[in-house]
Amino acid sequence: MQALQIHGAQDLRLSEIEPKPLAPDEVRIAVKSGGICGSDLSYYFKGRVGDFALQEPLVLGHEVAGEIAEVGDAIQGLALGDAVAINPARPCLACPDCLGGRSNLCRNMIFYGSAARMPHAQGAFSDFVIARADQCLPIPENMGFPIAAMAEPLAVALHAVRRAGDVMGRRVMIAGAGPIGLLVALAAKQAGATDIGIFDLAEPPLEKAREIGVDAIYRVGGVDNPLARFEANKGVFDVAFEATGALPALASLLRITRPGGRIVQIGMLPPGDVTLAANLLMAQEIDYLGSFRFHEEYQMAVDFLASGKIDVRPLITGTYGLNDADSAFEAAADRDQHIKVQLRFER
Amino acid sequence: MQALQIHGAQDLRLSEIEPKPLAPDEVRIAVKSGGICGSDLSYYFKGRVGDFALQEPLVLGHEVAGEIAEVGDAIQGLALGDAVAINPARPCLACPDCLGGRSNLCRNMIFYGSAARMPHAQGAFSDFVIARADQCLPIPENMGFPIAAMAEPLAVALHAVRRAGDVMGRRVMIAGAGPIGLLVALAAKQAGATDIGIFDLAEPPLEKAREIGVDAIYRVGGVDNPLARFEANKGVFDVAFEATGALPALASLLRITRPGGRIVQIGMLPPGDVTLAANLLMAQEIDYLGSFRFHEEYQMAVDFLASGKIDVRPLITGTYGLNDADSAFEAAADRDQHIKVQLRFER
Amino acid sequence: MQALQIHGAQDLRLSEIEPKPLAPDEVRIAVKSGGICGSDLSYYFKGRVGDFALQEPLVLGHEVAGEIAEVGDAIQGLALGDAVAINPARPCLACPDCLGGRSNLCRNMIFYGSAARMPHAQGAFSDFVIARADQCLPIPENMGFPIAAMAEPLAVALHAVRRAGDVMGRRVMIAGAGPIGLLVALAAKQAGATDIGIFDLAEPPLEKAREIGVDAIYRVGGVDNPLARFEANKGVFDVAFEATGALPALASLLRITRPGGRIVQIGMLPPGDVTLAANLLMAQEIDYLGSFRFHEEYQMAVDFLASGKIDVRPLITGTYGLNDADSAFEAAADRDQHIKVQLRFER
Amino acid sequence: MQALQIHGAQDLRLSEIEPKPLAPDEVRIAVKSGGICGSDLSYYFKGRVGDFALQEPLVLGHEVAGEIAEVGDAIQGLALGDAVAINPARPCLACPDCLGGRSNLCRNMIFYGSAARMPHAQGAFSDFVIARADQCLPIPENMGFPIAAMAEPLAVALHAVRRAGDVMGRRVMIAGAGPIGLLVALAAKQAGATDIGIFDLAEPPLEKAREIGVDAIYRVGGVDNPLARFEANKGVFDVAFEATGALPALASLLRITRPGGRIVQIGMLPPGDVTLAANLLMAQEIDYLGSFRFHEEYQMAVDFLASGKIDVRPLITGTYGLNDADSAFEAAADRDQHIKVQLRFER
Repeated sequence: MQALQIHGAQDLRLSEIEPKPLAPDEVRIAVKSGGICGSDLSYYFKGRVGDFALQEPLVLGHEVAGEIAEVGDAIQGLALGDAVAINPARPCLACPDCLGGRSNLCRNMIFYGSAARMPHAQGAFSDFVIARADQCLPIPENMGFPIAAMAEPLAVALHAVRRAGDVMGRRVMIAGAGPIGLLVALAAKQAGATDIGIFDLAEPPLEKAREIGVDAIYRVGGVDNPLARFEANKGVFDVAFEATGALPALASLLRITRPGGRIVQIGMLPPGDVTLAANLLMAQEIDYLGSFRFHEEYQMAVDFLASGKIDVRPLITGTYGLNDADSAFEAAADRDQHIKVQLRFER
Repeated sequence: MQALQIHGAQDLRLSEIEPKPLAPDEVRIAVKSGGICGSDLSYYFKGRVGDFALQEPLVLGHEVAGEIAEVGDAIQGLALGDAVAINPARPCLACPDCLGGRSNLCRNMIFYGSAARMPHAQGAFSDFVIARADQCLPIPENMGFPIAAMAEPLAVALHAVRRAGDVMGRRVMIAGAGPIGLLVALAAKQAGATDIGIFDLAEPPLEKAREIGVDAIYRVGGVDNPLARFEANKGVFDVAFEATGALPALASLLRITRPGGRIVQIGMLPPGDVTLAANLLMAQEIDYLGSFRFHEEYQMAVDFLASGKIDVRPLITGTYGLNDADSAFEAAADRDQHIKVQLRFER
Repeated sequence: MQALQIHGAQDLRLSEIEPKPLAPDEVRIAVKSGGICGSDLSYYFKGRVGDFALQEPLVLGHEVAGEIAEVGDAIQGLALGDAVAINPARPCLACPDCLGGRSNLCRNMIFYGSAARMPHAQGAFSDFVIARADQCLPIPENMGFPIAAMAEPLAVALHAVRRAGDVMGRRVMIAGAGPIGLLVALAAKQAGATDIGIFDLAEPPLEKAREIGVDAIYRVGGVDNPLARFEANKGVFDVAFEATGALPALASLLRITRPGGRIVQIGMLPPGDVTLAANLLMAQEIDYLGSFRFHEEYQMAVDFLASGKIDVRPLITGTYGLNDADSAFEAAADRDQHIKVQLRFER
Repeated sequence: MQALQIHGAQDLRLSEIEPKPLAPDEVRIAVKSGGICGSDLSYYFKGRVGDFALQEPLVLGHEVAGEIAEVGDAIQGLALGDAVAINPARPCLACPDCLGGRSNLCRNMIFYGSAARMPHAQGAFSDFVIARADQCLPIPENMGFPIAAMAEPLAVALHAVRRAGDVMGRRVMIAGAGPIGLLVALAAKQAGATDIGIFDLAEPPLEKAREIGVDAIYRVGGVDNPLARFEANKGVFDVAFEATGALPALASLLRITRPGGRIVQIGMLPPGDVTLAANLLMAQEIDYLGSFRFHEEYQMAVDFLASGKIDVRPLITGTYGLNDADSAFEAAADRDQHIKVQLRFER
């Protein structure tokens, strides 16, 4: 079968790879749609994500949906031809983290398309992918694979919003209007925030933010700081989300979050030590909360997408065939033109 | 009346100052005992605390207890001669923070002995101090003023432990065996931690930690890092408290706190940007929680001290008269000899 | 000035009463709109609410909005002619409950139109009403007084939803499609519930539920129990709201709420002992949570109404003049025709 | 092998039963100590526990510790001769409740010695018992099997206290000084309650409460109600635990718990509808929280017992041999003489 393998920075190949045999508790899924994520881009452009450098060829991709093509002997409740959203996370389900309700922190996690372990966990940008039954969430017929493939990044956003806790009736600010920032905006809106602001260096993603109903947008990076007014009296926002991974954004959030407020870190910051006004955080008793992937939010994401309560269609701005993968990756990195770029898999 | 005024670094004077008139909702208290805190020391040695430099003479002191000497006309429930622990915090009780149950974050706070505002909030190392009725907590006769003066730092520690949330049955590590670190150990023990470790650069405070029942002590700063073993598998401690304000301690806590764990920042870090492995915090979904002063924990502290459930007597290592104030401050800074040094006020 | 006074069951009078003098920290407001609540109806039809019987004439009404007509000397930030939603709660702002962030539990509370204290707390169905400044929330010009008068019952609903905690992505069931049940549905939708069901004995309020976007409606009380299917496997709903005060509804919720789920009690049950399957609650580890009035949710309600994020217009089904008050009360009790009936005040 | 089987009310037999074969992921444990619990007593005296009547002979017992006697082929980390506390709960570890951190609510749970399922889950009062590896917690050599057998009821108590949430610095009242009530007292003390009261109908268990350090004891059921004073101003206790299953106790707790307080139900109430002042619960916004068995608290219990931080020795008041089982059960029901009665298993 064919798979999109990254061999090093800027070296993405559509390769023929050998399908693996199926275990009794697994299914094989014909992949139909796959979204390109920031970590895919980082492997593509830099050959690494944070501390994790490629050590062997890696099939990319973890935002996928498809159709069941083979069913393991021990599987119940899934059948050939079922359309499913595929949760890329395969935690061990046996460690204290898994049994404590935080499987996203499982230290035995296998997650599609990641070089964090050696051998690497191969990804899902391939004709077929293998998954455990609990990774497969059936989707309604009219939902469509591209929407289903958005369940994964939406789950990341829902998880971040649930990490923030009490959001209804609260003032929210989001740093970064990329795919995750915008999905966080949709999730925070769903969670009942009173008003939601978002800031970014670029105008086009902010326009998209406006389009999906964000209450206020702020272009930063110019001479005037449109956020300066929120710094008065130690800050005004109850909840902030850092979805850029850029230190100036984080620094800005610390200045505009009110005493007793919460800042959720979703963006991938530079590895190792970075700078933070931690004494301010102490003196204003701020909660600075890491948010990593998701757990039960994947099911929630599928439910919200299936019911249409969260509409992610405006975020899917480009779709490319497998043969056009380089163009897809270039497009995905072009913030002026695109939010989320997806691959379609056709045979 | 006499008061211990700081005029600049290393310039502490026992001065005659004018008593202020009493408002109807206030009492005047004859101060009996006063503990020297880290911020007092910082004013004494550096003329500043963090960003706040002395701009005018400042009476130091905020860990105090005494006897009511004058009662405002509108006061009920307090009488001449009542022995009281004095809460140094005077929040406005009218802002959303106060009415939301977080008066420690009140942006109109007046707190004894602080240069954070101009004019400075004068402190309580003086013959008499004025307080609102809600600042005065009656203490039992047999408690003694030195114990009562420990209510303030104990309240800081209890607040930090309550910020950490679920502590019973949890593994706890504390950075720093100074007065606050040791009080946090007592508070975490009270909150039911399964085992409590503490680390420090110096041996004597660690011996004190052992004396008050800390389960494990670790001397750091040598060739071998005794905490290294806890870094395996991404860390083991459920809850950590940073009570030093030193960046290496914070960095160490990040490495040994388990994924999903919590780190409470109580120590005063250097002002402005400091370094932190924030990406690790994100990927391990750690809660990094500022802890600032206290709120209802002051009452709790008085209750625990009154009932003897928390015994702080081993921490009071030196007591000096007002005329010997410089010696007291020198002693308070001597970690080899002292934990908490107090002043006694006699007339 | 004129006021709607209840003198006993079915004895409502439009009386001339003497205006009270204004304290310096108070304003006098010309009432413009007032909603009739279940407790008003109970006084009207039974002369009592639960344990509290009328002991003297009582001006009814606590869901009100109006225009500022007189301003106390110490007032800042409010001016003659300002349109305001009026929070009927006047807690003491000094007790531990108030300062602990739960002023709705203030044991010194004065709440418009209640016979819980003697002398009774007179209500707001009068030409003018007096309020403390913190009770007055300015509303935008285009909001209108009828909408503003809905802030109070919406705040009750928002408070109930916040009592339930984690609602986003959860399955919710509501007992009772009266004004509060429907507002809870809107609030739970705002808080991001995945799907929301509601049940009632009557068809018309269920039709209204469907109109405002509730996901599923169930008519109970007939031969077949449409909720029986949810009882399998110990129940399916994560969160339930009891908004009827009827015991069969509560019993039904206990059977269909999943183990570990939460049931919020908002409806006023019969006073004294009622029946409950408390052993089931224990064995399924359910949280049964009282919800009483509101606190900061009043501000949230005004914000949601001002921004249009919650649209309560479909719930206002009738408006009557003061001279037609008996008709208004009769209408408010007619569940086949009405959800919320309001009075308009014109001079 | 021999086992204590109950065949009906008052029909307990020491029977010879056939050992079951061992699965690869299981161990066989030679039971050494076993405590008699209230549910064992209920089967013994009434042939049922609540709704669950005996339908076939049932080996009783679920508070046990022993020595590993046979090790399944797939087992790692446990060896012949290891002394272990045995967690009687065997949840499925695969359902959403288990993976959500609440395995005590697992709807596929198998729990030693329970007639809740048919065929019944056979208990552990037998020469040997089979357990999954995750049910076996190694204990230190000097701990002793009787202490280890207390881990189960202590886990129940710790779970109840953790259900109550924020306990440090709080006032606590416990209804019932039986084994669970007393263990809740120890657990609440461990969790840092400021003061702990307990009430009971009988004097001897109250004396035991005093012995283990409960702050205040109250004998109820006489002419005067010693709790009446706590009813003033709507109640004073922050947290209450109902550990009797008797309705008057629950009613009393509702009257003395403060508005906004929490009541945890651990005692087994009569099955079906019971009476409760639920309107009071609503108007005072009380949390009424079911508490059922335990989850990670079993490990915590073993840790607290191993370290000696919780000392349960005063609660073990009688020990009987298997051949004297009827005497043991009679003793266990005698509240004047006993708190916890245990069986010792010798071969």
